[in-house]
Amino acid sequence: MSSSNCTRPSGRTPTQLRPISISRAFTKHAEGSVLIAFGDTKVLCTASVLEKVPPHKKGSGEGWVTAEYGMLPRATHTRSDREAARGKQSGRTQEIQRLIGRAMRSVFDLKVLGERTIHLDCDVLQADGGTRTAAITGAYVAARDAINTLLDSGALKSDPIIDSVAAISVGIYQGVPVLDLDYPEDSSCDTDMNVVMTGKGGMIEVQGTAEGAAFSRDELNALIDLAQEGIRDLTQLQKEAFK
Amino acid sequence: MSSSNCTRPSGRTPTQLRPISISRAFTKHAEGSVLIAFGDTKVLCTASVLEKVPPHKKGSGEGWVTAEYGMLPRATHTRSDREAARGKQSGRTQEIQRLIGRAMRSVFDLKVLGERTIHLDCDVLQADGGTRTAAITGAYVAARDAINTLLDSGALKSDPIIDSVAAISVGIYQGVPVLDLDYPEDSSCDTDMNVVMTGKGGMIEVQGTAEGAAFSRDELNALIDLAQEGIRDLTQLQKEAFK
Amino acid sequence: MSSSNCTRPSGRTPTQLRPISISRAFTKHAEGSVLIAFGDTKVLCTASVLEKVPPHKKGSGEGWVTAEYGMLPRATHTRSDREAARGKQSGRTQEIQRLIGRAMRSVFDLKVLGERTIHLDCDVLQADGGTRTAAITGAYVAARDAINTLLDSGALKSDPIIDSVAAISVGIYQGVPVLDLDYPEDSSCDTDMNVVMTGKGGMIEVQGTAEGAAFSRDELNALIDLAQEGIRDLTQLQKEAFK
Amino acid sequence: MSSSNCTRPSGRTPTQLRPISISRAFTKHAEGSVLIAFGDTKVLCTASVLEKVPPHKKGSGEGWVTAEYGMLPRATHTRSDREAARGKQSGRTQEIQRLIGRAMRSVFDLKVLGERTIHLDCDVLQADGGTRTAAITGAYVAARDAINTLLDSGALKSDPIIDSVAAISVGIYQGVPVLDLDYPEDSSCDTDMNVVMTGKGGMIEVQGTAEGAAFSRDELNALIDLAQEGIRDLTQLQKEAFK
Amino acid sequence: MSSSNCTRPSGRTPTQLRPISISRAFTKHAEGSVLIAFGDTKVLCTASVLEKVPPHKKGSGEGWVTAEYGMLPRATHTRSDREAARGKQSGRTQEIQRLIGRAMRSVFDLKVLGERTIHLDCDVLQADGGTRTAAITGAYVAARDAINTLLDSGALKSDPIIDSVAAISVGIYQGVPVLDLDYPEDSSCDTDMNVVMTGKGGMIEVQGTAEGAAFSRDELNALIDLAQEGIRDLTQLQKEAFK
Amino acid sequence: MSSSNCTRPSGRTPTQLRPISISRAFTKHAEGSVLIAFGDTKVLCTASVLEKVPPHKKGSGEGWVTAEYGMLPRATHTRSDREAARGKQSGRTQEIQRLIGRAMRSVFDLKVLGERTIHLDCDVLQADGGTRTAAITGAYVAARDAINTLLDSGALKSDPIIDSVAAISVGIYQGVPVLDLDYPEDSSCDTDMNVVMTGKGGMIEVQGTAEGAAFSRDELNALIDLAQEGIRDLTQLQKEAFK
Repeated sequence: MSSSNCTRPSGRTPTQLRPISISRAFTKHAEGSVLIAFGDTKVLCTASVLEKVPPHKKGSGEGWVTAEYGMLPRATHTRSDREAARGKQSGRTQEIQRLIGRAMRSVFDLKVLGERTIHLDCDVLQADGGTRTAAITGAYVAARDAINTLLDSGALKSDPIIDSVAAISVGIYQGVPVLDLDYPEDSSCDTDMNVVMTGKGGMIEVQGTAEGAAFSRDELNALIDLAQEGIRDLTQLQKEAFK
Repeated sequence: MSSSNCTRPSGRTPTQLRPISISRAFTKHAEGSVLIAFGDTKVLCTASVLEKVPPHKKGSGEGWVTAEYGMLPRATHTRSDREAARGKQSGRTQEIQRLIGRAMRSVFDLKVLGERTIHLDCDVLQADGGTRTAAITGAYVAARDAINTLLDSGALKSDPIIDSVAAISVGIYQGVPVLDLDYPEDSSCDTDMNVVMTGKGGMIEVQGTAEGAAFSRDELNALIDLAQEGIRDLTQLQKEAFK
Repeated sequence: MSSSNCTRPSGRTPTQLRPISISRAFTKHAEGSVLIAFGDTKVLCTASVLEKVPPHKKGSGEGWVTAEYGMLPRATHTRSDREAARGKQSGRTQEIQRLIGRAMRSVFDLKVLGERTIHLDCDVLQADGGTRTAAITGAYVAARDAINTLLDSGALKSDPIIDSVAAISVGIYQGVPVLDLDYPEDSSCDTDMNVVMTGKGGMIEVQGTAEGAAFSRDELNALIDLAQEGIRDLTQLQKEAFK
Repeated sequence: MSSSNCTRPSGRTPTQLRPISISRAFTKHAEGSVLIAFGDTKVLCTASVLEKVPPHKKGSGEGWVTAEYGMLPRATHTRSDREAARGKQSGRTQEIQRLIGRAMRSVFDLKVLGERTIHLDCDVLQADGGTRTAAITGAYVAARDAINTLLDSGALKSDPIIDSVAAISVGIYQGVPVLDLDYPEDSSCDTDMNVVMTGKGGMIEVQGTAEGAAFSRDELNALIDLAQEGIRDLTQLQKEAFK
Repeated sequence: MSSSNCTRPSGRTPTQLRPISISRAFTKHAEGSVLIAFGDTKVLCTASVLEKVPPHKKGSGEGWVTAEYGMLPRATHTRSDREAARGKQSGRTQEIQRLIGRAMRSVFDLKVLGERTIHLDCDVLQADGGTRTAAITGAYVAARDAINTLLDSGALKSDPIIDSVAAISVGIYQGVPVLDLDYPEDSSCDTDMNVVMTGKGGMIEVQGTAEGAAFSRDELNALIDLAQEGIRDLTQLQKEAFK
Repeated sequence: MSSSNCTRPSGRTPTQLRPISISRAFTKHAEGSVLIAFGDTKVLCTASVLEKVPPHKKGSGEGWVTAEYGMLPRATHTRSDREAARGKQSGRTQEIQRLIGRAMRSVFDLKVLGERTIHLDCDVLQADGGTRTAAITGAYVAARDAINTLLDSGALKSDPIIDSVAAISVGIYQGVPVLDLDYPEDSSCDTDMNVVMTGKGGMIEVQGTAEGAAFSRDELNALIDLAQEGIRDLTQLQKEAFK
């Protein structure tokens, strides 16, 4: 595993993120609205405050945080069917939106939130690999904005967000662990891992999958090292977005 | 019907369009990709070239042009359910996408297009009234770009597009015919009409609906006069987008 | 646009309606039940009184009027799939039933109706063009009957119906504006327009579509002139049905 | 079980059918179109000839006969949801249409029919008990008409129909076996049985259900005796419909 | 109809049941859980006590008994599609689960049950003919166990079950009436009948279908004789299962 | 993280698996049929050989391996809705069946398999935590059996299975890393991880989720150590099942 002989299609070094941009207030109606770009991957993340909770939380005094994910039909190289027209969300879509929801709930104190829901919608406008990690990283910023409106208005007295959260992908590309896979890497790498961590460095999700050959324990360790570094950078960029 | 005592919420004169912007190549994968804004209404229109046709055109030597429409859940003031999650498109969505498809086919010579499909996807990122008229106006530009790629590559020898097409809404607001309704006007006006016309001035669709009181023949005439003017301007803006 | 050289397949003059018949109390359970025939187009329109309202009207003190539309599978030349078996209503079906609902609500004072629903079901037993205009014209008669039962029983003290409503199609067939298109005309005409008007002559809906070539402003005017005449006749026939 | 003390709500004797009418060519497009009335139960049965077969018959040289059943929403005392709007057919609907299909296939020689489908649509316009038995009895007449058109045109050289088929309900009402239950009887009887037989007297289906108390072997025998008589009469009426 | 020349594929005599086994407490969570085998047909029947009733029973003081039926995809010779993946239950499935539900309700006094539901789930692990009759016979035992838990806990003061219920199939195989059809017989017999009876001998359901040729009244009688004997044996086996 | 003060509800030591049993040929129709038990979790895994491939593999010369997962409604403490009745599979179900499919494909050489599909069905008869890991471990044995039938019959000349595969869950329960979580542990543990590995020790999937507090890198390492041990044992038990 030497990074010397790896040539990433983008010319990035193995440990280099794509250019990241985080634009707040991208649309005007949502309480939080963020366009996040991880290179050519662009995801619109909105956070809506709903003054109701799902049935399993009714009367509990606790709130809920949930997420939905979608991809515009031509966000990708070739057009995909529109899920609304097909009449159901794919297994992939459901898997991703469940992941985003769990990630966001991991930094919320639902008691402090009170009986309301923060509903995150992550819609991919353009896809180039890493849409779920961009979605989580952007959704946090949108949720932060939505909560700030509640704090500003006095609807919330104290802050239900206990930490920030961000996500990044890592993988073994041509034998080398690399950070933040873009589509050309993602579609040809051997192992693909998504890591979700909090701003304080706690691990929330580790999802590694051998796409071709199995991976070793050493490779696993190297990938997680890389992800930890990447998330430190993303956490910093999330902070800067609020300046 | 005097325009003197009408105060539009936006401060516009009765015959004034909202600021219109047309941004081509907004996303990178689609053969045509246009972000069109009618004021705060923002619709992403992509045109995809598919080298196949629906069953009813197979073997006919003719192509097809079709459209799908969607609205991001938080494009609106309050969050709407995601149609993919609900498992079906609403009647409103289907009505709009059928309208867009008819409008686009009205300016296509399907024989010249040959056995391929131009699939238009119009997704509303932010809604403030007039999403269907913005969608039609933007979809034309996206389709034009997609066809240009086919002409440039030699896949098409001659141009299947026979005219441009654009659309605008008009309505009776506080007793006065006004052009290009925004959301505050749309939700409180008496009559709402969408007009689709070609660049050469031919009428493609006229859809007028009395929301409250019925409208008179004179009002109908005044509204169509107004729409004709508005579409002349939109046609000009479509041309300028290609400069 | 001269009517001299137009030969309608049915031998009718351009301004001639098909034979219209309106049979009340066609079935026995519904509060209003009308079989309406526009020539060979036969639609069974029932009006049901439901002592409940949809969620958006609950507690408002207002009622609701809504419509559903269906076509028996073999109402047409070739058998169509049964929508119940396919598991969803087509876009065309939804578009039509939304149109019928709007048309009916345009002549109802929902406050006077009180918190109940008039549910109109328009089912096409035999189709030969103009099913939606027959449906609207017949649904009004069924609704009138249903309201009369409520007035007779004392459930309603005053009449929530403020005007009658009827609809007709017009189109440009072989260059000539003609009234009340039958199927052979409908499937080959250039422009097709459906007009909904009240008994007092107010316009409720104008939906004109260029099927082939675009239409001109003069043609639009001629078509609406023709529709106004046709609806005057239909309004008279609706009145006679109650004698 | 004495018939002396049974008073049927309709005043009929225990062995008396309701007035039966069979109107052929009720609608104009279908190859067979029959409105059948068993008293106030009215079912429109159409038979469509489709020059294709379902996958399991492709290339077999054999045809197929199938049926679909529907009920207009206000065919009943209180409005039922429209199955097309709900997005699925009820278990009851599917059970009935499967029964009709089996009954019709029992009198067809699918080899003689050749690779085409006879698709029967049975739509209840008005319901007053016994819709499935009326549907089977009427569907046979519609199928007979459809096959006759194929024989007349020469598309078929010999007749694929080997017998007629009809159906009737019987039940124990107030302790007495009665023929052809109407709705008031059906909804309060203890045992309800539907019997399908051919014109030559062969039994095709016997479906008996205890609604309240269980029934005895003697009651079963009495009910089937009654059904045999009823079907003999229906067979005669089917023959007369062709005169 | 002589039984002398009939050779059943299994070597059984015409009046012989397959080996029947009834295993209670097969799984641990359900209030009643029975694995029933009719030869190679194996059905897991669970009875769940739910402290709620469907809408039509709310506030009635009465309970409800209902059933659902499923078949594991590879319970059969060739794999069937999973109904959950296809998104709907087949007509056959719905027909069977409605039959099971009716059979079970026939031996319940819903007033004594009180406002709770006994929900029976019958899932076929291995199919070899007769799954619906095994399901009914096993579901009774599961329901009995579930009710016993309610009686034991004092939740019920008196027993809502008024009789036992069981079911068996009979058919004409090679001209001979035979009991308890297995798959090879079922798929090639002329007439197939399912009979449901109570332990006291009352008839609940008789469903006979001519698969090929019609059947005669004599054959019907012979089949029911046979079924009565078979159900007597099943009733005895149900009793023994509780020893 | 000391194991001294952890008391597992089952009394197991932190590194102890539940009793595992693997019963081959559990049902008779499938080419592979395995009932696997991880303690009280019981999953029926069948492998079906289908002589067809999904569209994306047609003509590729390669085969496909896929999986579906289901849970009987009363496999759990309280009854869950039947997915076939609800009309769709939950996100959880889809996530699990996608995981099983990926795990199985990781040990298959699809070229050697040839254009056929191994379809794995994993149906949970009784659930007590760890259903997905039991399903993967059992599905491998079923697939192995199905491939053996193809090798035995000569349909396959060489073995497409390149390694075995098994899965286990690990988690932090009361501060201690424990192996093979049962339901009481699963529902109250802080971190839950599923690990899939091959018989040769290659890692296929690592899916760790913080349920409550985030987990540290050290905890991650300890959990993976534990999982590696557990999978070594499961691999041994899979081998023994074939003796």
